Amino acid sequence: MSFLDRLARCRSKDMSAYRPFIVAGGSLGWVKNDFAAALRDFPDVFTVTDAAVSLSDRLQDFQDRTAAVDGAVRRLRERGLVRHWFEEKFPVKRAHGAVPLFDMERGAISFFGLPAFGVHLNGYVGHGNKMGAEMKLWVAERSHEKPVEPGKYDQIVAGGQPANLTVMENLIKECGEEASIDPALASQAVPVGAITYTMEMPEGLRRDVLYNFDLALAPDFNPVNTDGEVHAFHLWPLDKVSAIVHDTDDFKFNCSLVAIDFLIRHGAIAPEHPEYIDCIKGLRT
Amino acid sequence: MSFLDRLARCRSKDMSAYRPFIVAGGSLGWVKNDFAAALRDFPDVFTVTDAAVSLSDRLQDFQDRTAAVDGAVRRLRERGLVRHWFEEKFPVKRAHGAVPLFDMERGAISFFGLPAFGVHLNGYVGHGNKMGAEMKLWVAERSHEKPVEPGKYDQIVAGGQPANLTVMENLIKECGEEASIDPALASQAVPVGAITYTMEMPEGLRRDVLYNFDLALAPDFNPVNTDGEVHAFHLWPLDKVSAIVHDTDDFKFNCSLVAIDFLIRHGAIAPEHPEYIDCIKGLRT
Repeated sequence: MSFLDRLARCRSKDMSAYRPFIVAGGSLGWVKNDFAAALRDFPDVFTVTDAAVSLSDRLQDFQDRTAAVDGAVRRLRERGLVRHWFEEKFPVKRAHGAVPLFDMERGAISFFGLPAFGVHLNGYVGHGNKMGAEMKLWVAERSHEKPVEPGKYDQIVAGGQPANLTVMENLIKECGEEASIDPALASQAVPVGAITYTMEMPEGLRRDVLYNFDLALAPDFNPVNTDGEVHAFHLWPLDKVSAIVHDTDDFKFNCSLVAIDFLIRHGAIAPEHPEYIDCIKGLRT
Repeated sequence: MSFLDRLARCRSKDMSAYRPFIVAGGSLGWVKNDFAAALRDFPDVFTVTDAAVSLSDRLQDFQDRTAAVDGAVRRLRERGLVRHWFEEKFPVKRAHGAVPLFDMERGAISFFGLPAFGVHLNGYVGHGNKMGAEMKLWVAERSHEKPVEPGKYDQIVAGGQPANLTVMENLIKECGEEASIDPALASQAVPVGAITYTMEMPEGLRRDVLYNFDLALAPDFNPVNTDGEVHAFHLWPLDKVSAIVHDTDDFKFNCSLVAIDFLIRHGAIAPEHPEYIDCIKGLRT
């Protein structure tokens, strides 16, 4: 087992099973061939050819696109094709920083291979030099009832980025719900970068951009979960976190990448590590 | 001007002017066509074809390769082809973490398009949250007599990675020479990652891996240069550093990348910045 094994889990993809998803003349995502066939039932919304799936050109603005796509994916949900439903809208945009072209139910995003955005918070105690010997990291053990990756380890706070909040507003909201970190403390979190990955899921391509934050917590701070998503919190030395990420897949697949980035930024994975450069490059592909 | 302009300077290359440099059956670097022609004069050391330059198969071990290559590049120096000469050996290896196949004079490395390694230290004062408002960064103004990028801004400490030192030993040595940071303080530096870039130079491809370190310095610490490489040191707020990197090319080309990475890791470039993700990805290509 190795750090690169964690990265490899978030890489595998066979693009021959996909065709591009075109919106307003530009390629925005990827649709699996079997899902493309299902979209033929909505000719007013999607134009499906063997080469591509396009959003209908008659849908010219944000509101029209959002309403038309929402109607279609709700019918696909009734048919049991879109299974997880969050009743939460994600912005659909070409890339970070671009203007959203429409909003789409979170549960449908990876069916269309669209980029999705999230926030992950590393809550730590102590200082990080000397190979992390003095620093501890809060780790959340996910609820054993969660549909996705139950019981796996996670950051102290993490969540998807909805359409109606800024990144920082969303982080502050998630901090309250997931760990009872009050807004004054949460707003001290430092944005420290991002990781990106593309991962093949049963329904399509998951293309994630995770904005990462670090937050220094007092030694006597105790996170309390309020939304039922966390079974327990653990405060572990960085060398223990590093060993778990390296030797097991006990971390949720994408949370292990956020942890590797944290361990590198705080010196707990040192330049001498043979996977150092490959990890650093592999966290942003 | 933009952060991505800084990255673009370290990207441009036209590979049609190069052929691979093969050692022990594997491609290790790139040689420009006109330099390949000059290497034909050393048939005992290099086998030159239209497709590739290979190190002679009769050179089987580290010592033989190092001695034979050294003899050839010293003659190329006498001919005025290799201009900068450091009398300092760099390890030649396939990648980070690999066993060196031989050592080569630093001044010849980019003629062969070989990966080179360096250390860069961000010396900072204060804390880095709240968009960097409370943090300052030491910036070195390079000697106006340096042959490369005189008078440009640089990290407080930076240097190439020679063959005979570990990364940390080298950082501690450079800390003493460039800024009079004593070994006890220098050893508190935290390794925080690396940036990589490939840049076309007149002589060939510069393919660098820079190991980055952060070091918290006391408000009353004053760096003192001892090797004549620094004209002056400046202690500037992060927003000033950010503006200089963004609006000018006053930083040495590769030091601007190290500064962008620092600004991102300490929240002085925020997720809302339209170039955020492209910068993060572009620093490791």
